[in-house]
Amino acid sequence: MTTQAPLVVIIGGGFGGLTAAKGLKRAPVNVLLIDRSNHHVFQPLLYQVATSVLAPGQIASPIRSLLSLQINTSVMLGNVTGVDATSKQVIVDAGDKVGLKVDYDYLILATGAKHTYFGHDEFAAFAPGLKSLADAESLRNHILEVFEKAEIEDDAERRRALLTFVMVGAGPTGVEIASAIAVMARTSLRRDFRCIDPTSAHVVLVDAGSRPLATFSEKLSEAAMRRLTTLGVEVRLGVAVQVVDEEGVVLGNERIRAKTVVWTAGVAPSPAGKWLGTVVDRAGRVRIEPDLTVPEHPDIFVIGDTASLDQDGHPLPGVAQVAMQQGKYAAKSIFRRVAGQSPLPPFRYFDKGNLAVVGRNFAVLQSAGVELSGFMAWLVWAFIHIQFLAEASLRFSVFLQWSWTYISGKRAERLIIWHRAND
Amino acid sequence: MTTQAPLVVIIGGGFGGLTAAKGLKRAPVNVLLIDRSNHHVFQPLLYQVATSVLAPGQIASPIRSLLSLQINTSVMLGNVTGVDATSKQVIVDAGDKVGLKVDYDYLILATGAKHTYFGHDEFAAFAPGLKSLADAESLRNHILEVFEKAEIEDDAERRRALLTFVMVGAGPTGVEIASAIAVMARTSLRRDFRCIDPTSAHVVLVDAGSRPLATFSEKLSEAAMRRLTTLGVEVRLGVAVQVVDEEGVVLGNERIRAKTVVWTAGVAPSPAGKWLGTVVDRAGRVRIEPDLTVPEHPDIFVIGDTASLDQDGHPLPGVAQVAMQQGKYAAKSIFRRVAGQSPLPPFRYFDKGNLAVVGRNFAVLQSAGVELSGFMAWLVWAFIHIQFLAEASLRFSVFLQWSWTYISGKRAERLIIWHRAND
Repeated sequence: MTTQAPLVVIIGGGFGGLTAAKGLKRAPVNVLLIDRSNHHVFQPLLYQVATSVLAPGQIASPIRSLLSLQINTSVMLGNVTGVDATSKQVIVDAGDKVGLKVDYDYLILATGAKHTYFGHDEFAAFAPGLKSLADAESLRNHILEVFEKAEIEDDAERRRALLTFVMVGAGPTGVEIASAIAVMARTSLRRDFRCIDPTSAHVVLVDAGSRPLATFSEKLSEAAMRRLTTLGVEVRLGVAVQVVDEEGVVLGNERIRAKTVVWTAGVAPSPAGKWLGTVVDRAGRVRIEPDLTVPEHPDIFVIGDTASLDQDGHPLPGVAQVAMQQGKYAAKSIFRRVAGQSPLPPFRYFDKGNLAVVGRNFAVLQSAGVELSGFMAWLVWAFIHIQFLAEASLRFSVFLQWSWTYISGKRAERLIIWHRAND
Repeated sequence: MTTQAPLVVIIGGGFGGLTAAKGLKRAPVNVLLIDRSNHHVFQPLLYQVATSVLAPGQIASPIRSLLSLQINTSVMLGNVTGVDATSKQVIVDAGDKVGLKVDYDYLILATGAKHTYFGHDEFAAFAPGLKSLADAESLRNHILEVFEKAEIEDDAERRRALLTFVMVGAGPTGVEIASAIAVMARTSLRRDFRCIDPTSAHVVLVDAGSRPLATFSEKLSEAAMRRLTTLGVEVRLGVAVQVVDEEGVVLGNERIRAKTVVWTAGVAPSPAGKWLGTVVDRAGRVRIEPDLTVPEHPDIFVIGDTASLDQDGHPLPGVAQVAMQQGKYAAKSIFRRVAGQSPLPPFRYFDKGNLAVVGRNFAVLQSAGVELSGFMAWLVWAFIHIQFLAEASLRFSVFLQWSWTYISGKRAERLIIWHRAND
């Protein structure tokens, strides 16, 4: 690492930030990647940690080891709390140190999104989301625990509430969790209880819209809908969740008693817009220029879920593909500027397609005019998801785990591990 | 499950309880196994979860799935708080239900041991032990985090404290963790930091006795001692820990500043003796009869770490082998009584030998007059530990993981996952 080279600070080690860091591997710059967790998570498979199929280590890699051979790059575990664009510094809490100031020459904000309750923060305690490994482990513990509680529950109504699972939001995550819980109850857990019948688990998928997987074509939504019904998932559409509390949810005038509610209905961007004091869209995402920089701050790039950019009149979606392509573009753009080369043409997102899995043996796929649902789409889904894992060892490990779970029906990570102060 | 058959209640799904349950597979009884966790843990490999090699799911199996095909057996997730030997009931907190009463005809208490601080409970906050998966995950998070904190620490003394690891107790667990941390710092972490040199980590192993691995022969202790020194572990013998606090430990008059202290120095039995109001030994373990039952309670068996039984004038050690052989004996004994057969001869422990691992490529082994240290003993150690995992799938999975970590030096589970209320 040379000290005279410009310093590129990247905030966030998700798909966008990590791709940007890797894109700067051979650039004549020093890179510092700051993330509040020590690992990069492959978020599309978080639901499989939540449903006991995969271990956290199978979908996550230490950011340090992903970048250890990239000698111009260092990594810091820290929580960014602000940006001072005037003095060109980011403010970080790291370890026991509060308010560390870190200089930058170029800044890439890839700080992602978290789930939001649209003003109903009181729902949070009863309807967690699924964004981190900690979320996934907590949900795993909770799902396994309600089956345990149901097994010793004499009261039929309470038992029913324990075995009712409500997913709010019928996007890919909601559909994937709902179908995974339905499959788990009907396969892995089927023989393991003596008083309850796990296959009687009642899985409800709720959405205010008119169809599940609304980002796909209507035909594929219908196919997903049929599959969900086959799996025994009750899909409730066109209805808003009024209340989430300890007892369950209220949909319109109807109360559904459920001890498990998972929130996948909305995401809110990180506070990057507030840090910069710049223009944001309605959701709070930073409005960026076609070169992914912030207006009046050509040295600050904002990418991924926390950025807002239109293409052909439509906002780009908050998906991994966009974040990765933007990360690559930002890295290349900085490389060219540092090297004194002409600027890149404006960023354009190339949509490779869209995939969502619905239980075992079934996925929907939409790509380059092709629409596919069923087993073949599921094979493509499995192949692509394995291919995009960050390390070859994870690809191998997940492939083996999936094969084994597919054949045996067993789930390797069916563990309740609560972290209590005293045990 | 027939309702007229006698009900055998087993408390604890560790080595003893699980072996007892399996031993009753074909007995004309109903079996209920109660444990406060949903999984059986292979404790000898907990230190590998703490040092990021193995995932929790690789050394643990859901008790329910281990016993799912055993149709006379059911499983309850619950915390036993007492035994009423007069009315033949155990008292259980399970789920939201407090003080559930569960009838038994035969009772097997296999409730194990936890770590103890010999009256210094104030040490607990600074020197956790390693008995559960939650302990192992917390320690893993902590160890990874001190390296992260050291990387951003400018003060040399504080950096040194962050990179100092003190293990209290030089039994197998203390030796295994100390050497595993030393190996991890010198292999997996070596290239991943830019400011600190992980290989400078200072690992200290403290024991009040005169040698490490005191249950082995003196020759093997010496071999282990040499190996520890080669690995860079500082072994401090004949010295008691006076103080453990936020700053580290005090040994005699010397303070060692260390942000990581692990306590493996002592275990205390479960409260089984108090529940029964019966005679206990000095450590608090229930004094049992040669047929493993409690004096005056021929229908209550106490086995494993929470039981105290002498053989040839020496107390049986608190090891997995004893618990498993006792579990098997208790099951067989109940089987014979229910079947109206003559009682078994008194229990005799058959000591198959003793093994401990010291880092990579080195273990000590003592069995049937044979003493061995080095690479061959390590192969035996690895073979035996894989063989004793509860499921074939785990054996395969651990074998692959070990092979991969051995070859690549990488650790698959190098994840810091803190479970906070709000993130």
